[in-house]
Amino acid sequence: MSFLEKEIHQQPEVMATLLEREQSNARRIAAELQARDTRYVIVAARGTSDNAARYSQYLLGAHNALPVGLATPSLFSVYHRPPSLAGALVVGISQSGQSTDIVAVLAEAQQQGVPTLAITNDPESPLAAQADYVLDLHAGEERAVAATKTYTAQLAALALLSCAMAKDDDRLRALHQVPAGVEQVLGQADRIAASVERYRYMESCVVLGRGYNYATAFEIALKLKELNYLIAESYSSADFMHGPIAVVGGGFPAMVVAPSGTMFNTMRRFSLELKSRGAELLVISDQQALLEEGVTPLPLPAQVPEWLSPMVAVVAGQLFALYLTLTKGHDPDHPEGLQKVTITR
Amino acid sequence: MSFLEKEIHQQPEVMATLLEREQSNARRIAAELQARDTRYVIVAARGTSDNAARYSQYLLGAHNALPVGLATPSLFSVYHRPPSLAGALVVGISQSGQSTDIVAVLAEAQQQGVPTLAITNDPESPLAAQADYVLDLHAGEERAVAATKTYTAQLAALALLSCAMAKDDDRLRALHQVPAGVEQVLGQADRIAASVERYRYMESCVVLGRGYNYATAFEIALKLKELNYLIAESYSSADFMHGPIAVVGGGFPAMVVAPSGTMFNTMRRFSLELKSRGAELLVISDQQALLEEGVTPLPLPAQVPEWLSPMVAVVAGQLFALYLTLTKGHDPDHPEGLQKVTITR
Repeated sequence: MSFLEKEIHQQPEVMATLLEREQSNARRIAAELQARDTRYVIVAARGTSDNAARYSQYLLGAHNALPVGLATPSLFSVYHRPPSLAGALVVGISQSGQSTDIVAVLAEAQQQGVPTLAITNDPESPLAAQADYVLDLHAGEERAVAATKTYTAQLAALALLSCAMAKDDDRLRALHQVPAGVEQVLGQADRIAASVERYRYMESCVVLGRGYNYATAFEIALKLKELNYLIAESYSSADFMHGPIAVVGGGFPAMVVAPSGTMFNTMRRFSLELKSRGAELLVISDQQALLEEGVTPLPLPAQVPEWLSPMVAVVAGQLFALYLTLTKGHDPDHPEGLQKVTITR
Repeated sequence: MSFLEKEIHQQPEVMATLLEREQSNARRIAAELQARDTRYVIVAARGTSDNAARYSQYLLGAHNALPVGLATPSLFSVYHRPPSLAGALVVGISQSGQSTDIVAVLAEAQQQGVPTLAITNDPESPLAAQADYVLDLHAGEERAVAATKTYTAQLAALALLSCAMAKDDDRLRALHQVPAGVEQVLGQADRIAASVERYRYMESCVVLGRGYNYATAFEIALKLKELNYLIAESYSSADFMHGPIAVVGGGFPAMVVAPSGTMFNTMRRFSLELKSRGAELLVISDQQALLEEGVTPLPLPAQVPEWLSPMVAVVAGQLFALYLTLTKGHDPDHPEGLQKVTITR
């Protein structure tokens, strides 16, 4: 069994460990942040961690009333023209905690005297050293180049912090149910493995989501790219209508991330529009009627609240990307041309 | 001649008109904003306008010390869980000013009592009606579905506001030179027309830029998608190293946006790395040595400062996309399946 497959299956355990071990730390961080004049959040991240940042925009926006913007690290690390950060909480997300430009953003924030938080799998990393607060992912070493367990752990860490900041115990209880939901998706592994053959010679596809699952679409597309050397574009369904939909013709594969919740009807309408234009739908959802519209249904467990669904939905996409790369005969742990730790200056 | 071609060629005139007619308005807006407690900027936009928003992140960050985040309109329009906007300036960018979800962001901002600015080609639009301040693009009707002159006008409007807020007359003078730079790129039209044949059967490509020209990469990729029904992905060169670079194999077409300036050396190194991995380079630059590394050089005029280069560099990409669609025999004004005004709810 590859490291990638093992790490995908470790996710429920990793998330449960993180939720247990970081709970009091998250409460302490939330309490201390309350004393600061935090008006908005800037998140610095790259690659998979950037997709966790996308999730935080909806999570902290909807549940903590905090606007979240993604940092432009090169303003700090290349142009040396950092903006004024007064009023910001600056968060760096990095599995390795090594990315030079992400560290540069936190270093500047600390110099300007605004609070900084690192979310990393290495509490001894340069990123952690640069931060006032650290949330440790407790994911154990991630050996596959393509990140899986550290991504869902990043989402869980953000959700834990959000609950602590809102002092919302109902949501915290729901968060603790997520590992069981991920188990259920992992239980579908054989079914997903059986569905990938059809896509052996797929050269390009799009992955679409919106709202909370905008991040999920980006992350699944990234896994498909990293592991399968194919062109996989991700979009908000809203942005997709502004131009890119022109590429959809007969049989063009479109994966839609459409779990139950406030965004479901929008995603349902959008999926049917894609289908009417001739797209081949791959549907990630817990809604049977929409799953049946897809050539390839990727079912999710019911009763996961929408705000938590990204941690469950992405796993279906991880499994799809894993089995597709196996079917193609690639090495899932060492995609050609990629390195685990990317140092961007 | 198509509307698209006409509109591409109207750009120097449109920008000159805008710079003249909006200068005092921009000064007034800047003066009034100074009296407000603006700590950061949120920009709401979709499609091409979202790429103008990406430019503003670097422009206002580097020259006005303002962090700029892109809004998540669905938090306002679908989830009805808008974040608290205290300390923000909220900017809506939309050619038509019709996009429902962008208007919803400004409506909420106005209700929360924070300043709002609309950048639009229609000062009578719902977006303009919802804003405290309006910068009018003065671009005349844009009849081609693919936006060109309104994009460069949006960049010019943002640059005008940035100069006014910084009270920087040197930069303002440089901005007034941009239409002449665009003229020079338009003078290369025949040369660009002659270069597109090679790409008649290209099915996918990537467009790469970083810093100020991150926006340019996104906008050129969008034109290629809208007009040529091909898969064109855009990336920051930094993010590209985190996974997507796996797709680059022998002959994979990569367009790099690499004008002179602080980011040039980074983009140059990155371009050579792509070439060493077998990519076919299309180079947009004013640096002769880098142009020579490309199979297809798309030269820019020298002496355009980096912060203004996005208004010039994108025009080379617009022309490339235009001539490619002509070579394919498509209708450049009415790409299949697209509408000029997209109403996203």
